[in-house]
Amino acid sequence: MVRTQLTLIQIDNYGPWTVTPHPRPEVDLQTLQSRLYADLSQLVGRDGGYVFYTRFDNMIAVTNTLDMADHERIQSSVRNRYPVTISLTVGVDDRPEGALAGATKQLQAAGSAQDGTRTEILGGEVIDPTNAGVQIAHFDVNSATERYTDQLSAFEVYQQINRGYVTLAGHMHDAHGALTFFVGGDNVIAVTPDLNQPAFQDAIEHVQEIADIDLKVGVGEGATATDAGMAAKEALEHCRETGDNVKLGAEPAAH
Amino acid sequence: MVRTQLTLIQIDNYGPWTVTPHPRPEVDLQTLQSRLYADLSQLVGRDGGYVFYTRFDNMIAVTNTLDMADHERIQSSVRNRYPVTISLTVGVDDRPEGALAGATKQLQAAGSAQDGTRTEILGGEVIDPTNAGVQIAHFDVNSATERYTDQLSAFEVYQQINRGYVTLAGHMHDAHGALTFFVGGDNVIAVTPDLNQPAFQDAIEHVQEIADIDLKVGVGEGATATDAGMAAKEALEHCRETGDNVKLGAEPAAH
Amino acid sequence: MVRTQLTLIQIDNYGPWTVTPHPRPEVDLQTLQSRLYADLSQLVGRDGGYVFYTRFDNMIAVTNTLDMADHERIQSSVRNRYPVTISLTVGVDDRPEGALAGATKQLQAAGSAQDGTRTEILGGEVIDPTNAGVQIAHFDVNSATERYTDQLSAFEVYQQINRGYVTLAGHMHDAHGALTFFVGGDNVIAVTPDLNQPAFQDAIEHVQEIADIDLKVGVGEGATATDAGMAAKEALEHCRETGDNVKLGAEPAAH
Amino acid sequence: MVRTQLTLIQIDNYGPWTVTPHPRPEVDLQTLQSRLYADLSQLVGRDGGYVFYTRFDNMIAVTNTLDMADHERIQSSVRNRYPVTISLTVGVDDRPEGALAGATKQLQAAGSAQDGTRTEILGGEVIDPTNAGVQIAHFDVNSATERYTDQLSAFEVYQQINRGYVTLAGHMHDAHGALTFFVGGDNVIAVTPDLNQPAFQDAIEHVQEIADIDLKVGVGEGATATDAGMAAKEALEHCRETGDNVKLGAEPAAH
Repeated sequence: MVRTQLTLIQIDNYGPWTVTPHPRPEVDLQTLQSRLYADLSQLVGRDGGYVFYTRFDNMIAVTNTLDMADHERIQSSVRNRYPVTISLTVGVDDRPEGALAGATKQLQAAGSAQDGTRTEILGGEVIDPTNAGVQIAHFDVNSATERYTDQLSAFEVYQQINRGYVTLAGHMHDAHGALTFFVGGDNVIAVTPDLNQPAFQDAIEHVQEIADIDLKVGVGEGATATDAGMAAKEALEHCRETGDNVKLGAEPAAH
Repeated sequence: MVRTQLTLIQIDNYGPWTVTPHPRPEVDLQTLQSRLYADLSQLVGRDGGYVFYTRFDNMIAVTNTLDMADHERIQSSVRNRYPVTISLTVGVDDRPEGALAGATKQLQAAGSAQDGTRTEILGGEVIDPTNAGVQIAHFDVNSATERYTDQLSAFEVYQQINRGYVTLAGHMHDAHGALTFFVGGDNVIAVTPDLNQPAFQDAIEHVQEIADIDLKVGVGEGATATDAGMAAKEALEHCRETGDNVKLGAEPAAH
Repeated sequence: MVRTQLTLIQIDNYGPWTVTPHPRPEVDLQTLQSRLYADLSQLVGRDGGYVFYTRFDNMIAVTNTLDMADHERIQSSVRNRYPVTISLTVGVDDRPEGALAGATKQLQAAGSAQDGTRTEILGGEVIDPTNAGVQIAHFDVNSATERYTDQLSAFEVYQQINRGYVTLAGHMHDAHGALTFFVGGDNVIAVTPDLNQPAFQDAIEHVQEIADIDLKVGVGEGATATDAGMAAKEALEHCRETGDNVKLGAEPAAH
Repeated sequence: MVRTQLTLIQIDNYGPWTVTPHPRPEVDLQTLQSRLYADLSQLVGRDGGYVFYTRFDNMIAVTNTLDMADHERIQSSVRNRYPVTISLTVGVDDRPEGALAGATKQLQAAGSAQDGTRTEILGGEVIDPTNAGVQIAHFDVNSATERYTDQLSAFEVYQQINRGYVTLAGHMHDAHGALTFFVGGDNVIAVTPDLNQPAFQDAIEHVQEIADIDLKVGVGEGATATDAGMAAKEALEHCRETGDNVKLGAEPAAH
């Protein structure tokens, strides 16, 4: 059963902080952002969650199985190690888009992202893990290295991959309420509602038609993002071996 | 005078490594990638360079003033601290696009990104810093917090910002051979040839028209990316105060 | 009830690695070691454990409540992010010294620390958490800032503090089979068997007499190192307020 | 010519911060301290300096070739990425002890380590690098793995190594005004004035006699800690091959 818990992670009042009292060096901001992301990835990942960096000052996490005490511990750990603090709000829905919309509303209701007095919000309600589950689809680009990385200029490759990503993310969102994230290289991960083989076949054909980029996808389900994501990766390996474009993995046995 | 030295940073044989002998957990890959980026950002930044993460397995750096010994030291530092190695190739041109094309060709000539025997390439030729300079344009979205972050769902905001980025990056590339990167929040940094005020005015109007997103931009020049980037940030602060859409900063005095 | 599970963490074949093919730069080794420690601290800390850095290539962790699957996950996470691997062996005893001796024997039986073929050992048996518990004593030096840091040269202060540490660690080990670690500043943490107030009073008097350094100590018990350690910190705050030299905290209520 | 510039790095008002408003979790403090050390190690190391962690809230760095602008950049980089700030004061002397005493006095004169209003001190005067140089001695324990790590309990090994370290550090300080630091494993690095072969032979015999631990040592000189330290490491490798106990390396050619 797919019912997803998503957490919106927002750095409190980050924009003003980056220019107070003077603009801070870009190198330090980039270091801060990417290390904060790495730490959140580890903290959330420890319980089977995934964090996607998106804009870095706003990140989106799949947090099925993390309760509010887990969220609070993460919030506290950031406060103890960074010059900034974070707010965390949680939403739950059968469609990831709905879950994130819920989480976002919670945070917006508490105040603006640039309100210096709105700090360390912790809101929303978590799911009962026994009534939940995650579906993850892991896409990559067929022959990305041969066709792109080894042929085109590195910036053109990046733009091509991004074009494919944007096309896919728009389709998955509009057609299914799924949330799709670029995760490096030629890899894209979608957090989806309970979708079947034809839905993914359609998505791949849509990207092929609109952006002229060939994708394949492995899909997995599980109690956590890690379980679902690992099943998706194994299904994707299956595609690599067989030449299939879409492979839905078996749900992993309970453990 | 604007003449840019760019370095292509590529993790050697990364794709195969991520699935050998089995797919490695996504959380560990995300942590590895973002920390490697943070470290490169610091290592390159120490001498005034900028690194952009783009696809994470391929990164693009502005490296005016870093010579080949500096590049070799960075390569060695990564080897000593990570389970992967990196190749670094350098290109120089009046147009950033040309510099990166040169760097990319150097690396492609040495072998495929997934050739397990092609490791730690160090290639290309560096610029004489006295005949060089960098122009950086720092864009952000007008009222991004009020119009987007505080209003829309976090994923929609991300897609909106990305849409604006893609439109801007395409225009700057096609019209000027500039390379444009999203750097988090609502911030976009372009490494440009020597462009004047109308060129930036056009770019902003183009994005307004095509993507319906209002940008402003501060522009700076300097001997290094840090010098140019800091001048750009200050020019952008000037826009924030005056309401101007475009501000070209004065070149910082030599120091 | 105090019954401690300790894990010996050893970097596999680290000595030879640091000089192959040539000596690696000290700066990179220091960075690698301290970041690996930080990561292990987080990974073990997530489940309430403590890691002490000791020699950095051999670290000692309190791991009550971590089972073998948790240990395996930590081992795998290091493999995926570092150029070195680690072995982990576990021991359990009423006296911490006995637990560590057991863990060490497991690892020594598997081969030498410099045997290149002995990698990623995972051994020993974990405790049933319901029959276990941890006692932590948190010592600091009375008026360390006023008497030492603000008066003496920084190296002399370091040597003074270290002298106090060595005296205390020797006494706690020989008298009680406790393991005592310096954790920065003027702070020392001992993992102890079930000791009472007079035992700590004796320890403090011993250090006063032998090394002429005044200590105070807060003591806590709990299911995990974190629970016990936080109770110890609160007891130490109590000492600060009251001027007591020894304070045994109440065991935290189950949660 | 040996004339050493040392920098005292002190976290401002750290003790009070760690317990305000309540004691912060030890795991977060350990992570903060070790990561800050790793970052400082990289920042100082970029220009050829070494940082020793000692008490973590007070660290000692060899900074020949770093001027005050370099120090200020390091201070600013910490401020931008950590929840704490640091003070940096510099001293210069033919004897490292004298250099550190000078740096310490500068900082003590500015206020207490626990004075909340004394933040980000930057003081002292740097050396003219052309009139300076560093001598580094790199010691390790003969057959440490065979005799200790593979035989004794991990804690006993740690105490043995520490005992050897304390004996050596005391001798080097009292006899020569040298500063000696444990750097992990069985490795100890001393920052020395210009000492000759018999001085090191004496030191080794002293430790053998008092602490019954067999050391060997490689010694190097150079313009920076990195140059001197790498020469010392190579001299130590020479000892490993020949069985010599002391080896003074040739000064590296200018480069």
